Amino acid sequence: MDQVRIIEIKEGVFEQNNQKAQELRDSLKQEKVFLLNLMSAPGSGKTTTLVQTIKGLQDEMKIGIMEADIDSDVDARTIQQTGARVVQLHTGGMCHLDAEMTRQGIDALGREDLDLIVLENVGNLVCPAEFDTGSTKNAMILSVPEGDDKPLKYPLMFAVADVVLVNKMDVAEHFDFDLERFKDNVRLRNPEAIILPISARTGEGMEPWLDWLRQQIERQQ
Amino acid sequence: MDQVRIIEIKEGVFEQNNQKAQELRDSLKQEKVFLLNLMSAPGSGKTTTLVQTIKGLQDEMKIGIMEADIDSDVDARTIQQTGARVVQLHTGGMCHLDAEMTRQGIDALGREDLDLIVLENVGNLVCPAEFDTGSTKNAMILSVPEGDDKPLKYPLMFAVADVVLVNKMDVAEHFDFDLERFKDNVRLRNPEAIILPISARTGEGMEPWLDWLRQQIERQQ
Repeated sequence: MDQVRIIEIKEGVFEQNNQKAQELRDSLKQEKVFLLNLMSAPGSGKTTTLVQTIKGLQDEMKIGIMEADIDSDVDARTIQQTGARVVQLHTGGMCHLDAEMTRQGIDALGREDLDLIVLENVGNLVCPAEFDTGSTKNAMILSVPEGDDKPLKYPLMFAVADVVLVNKMDVAEHFDFDLERFKDNVRLRNPEAIILPISARTGEGMEPWLDWLRQQIERQQ
Repeated sequence: MDQVRIIEIKEGVFEQNNQKAQELRDSLKQEKVFLLNLMSAPGSGKTTTLVQTIKGLQDEMKIGIMEADIDSDVDARTIQQTGARVVQLHTGGMCHLDAEMTRQGIDALGREDLDLIVLENVGNLVCPAEFDTGSTKNAMILSVPEGDDKPLKYPLMFAVADVVLVNKMDVAEHFDFDLERFKDNVRLRNPEAIILPISARTGEGMEPWLDWLRQQIERQQ
């Protein structure tokens, strides 16, 4: 297997972040590149969902992935097996990515020939929500074992998400998770959010998610 | 049900944190109060584990709980039903507690008559590990659905943990989780960590955990 590229990224100045994020978003729009910021708690299944997403879309478009982590390159190695272009971003201990860090990652990945770039953000329901990365859209994953009360405890994450994937639905019967109660809790924070139940492991519910992505990417073209 | 007390806490100066943490730890030792800092990702089962822990120990000692969250008081309400004294700490959007915030929480809770105080930290595998809270010992929970690779991706959290509880063992058969591989990964970060498999839901494995706590608390007396 090829060596995974590991990029050490540096934090930008916080005050300028919103401006830099908007600049990045505008330049990606001009270049017709869709940037998805994918967020979740640790272990919610971001990488597995991403592998299924790549498999579902890679015949239709060119995809690049940025894997952000405090340490390790285990996720980048998993993604590499799909054939998608991937870089591993190391955040130097930081729990989030800002717009400047994201831009550095995109520069390292190369954007010219890509239709879709996914930033797999650091596994964390707090900090990543506080920083606009310059993404075209934000997606987040909440997995069933985490519980249906999480929108009450991590309000900002649910407020900034354009789409909420509810992962690990295949094991829902083993947990006290009420999908309707979860939807109600999400709507308290974000009435506009699209909520899609999936199982990245079994492939259940992936088509509505892929369709949502296709539509969003088409608008950017 | 009584109203849950909600304390809005303010962040201390980062540079002074280590010193303040040591001062808090020393003063708790003098007063024979054991402070446990309980950390995990969102949805790992901190509150359920805490309820079981309180039930197992409350006939032997006096227990106070500090619930730290960005928002909501759902966990404090759950804890309140056990009869333990509890305060809810709101971190003002921050993803961690430092020693000064912890001290403010303990002052609000009152420490005079307590043997054990547990700080249920913000659900997050990154930031809480970076700040010494002044705790006597650090415990963390990793739940089976999160995966056995997490010590590779969140090294500091596993490095600072004195004990690692592996929760949700009752559903292990439904996940690709290898306990031995997990132990190996933990040991890469922390050869000294005690690793205890539990199910807070079924009560499986709680006795070794309670025994560990009893021994630690005894040393503080």
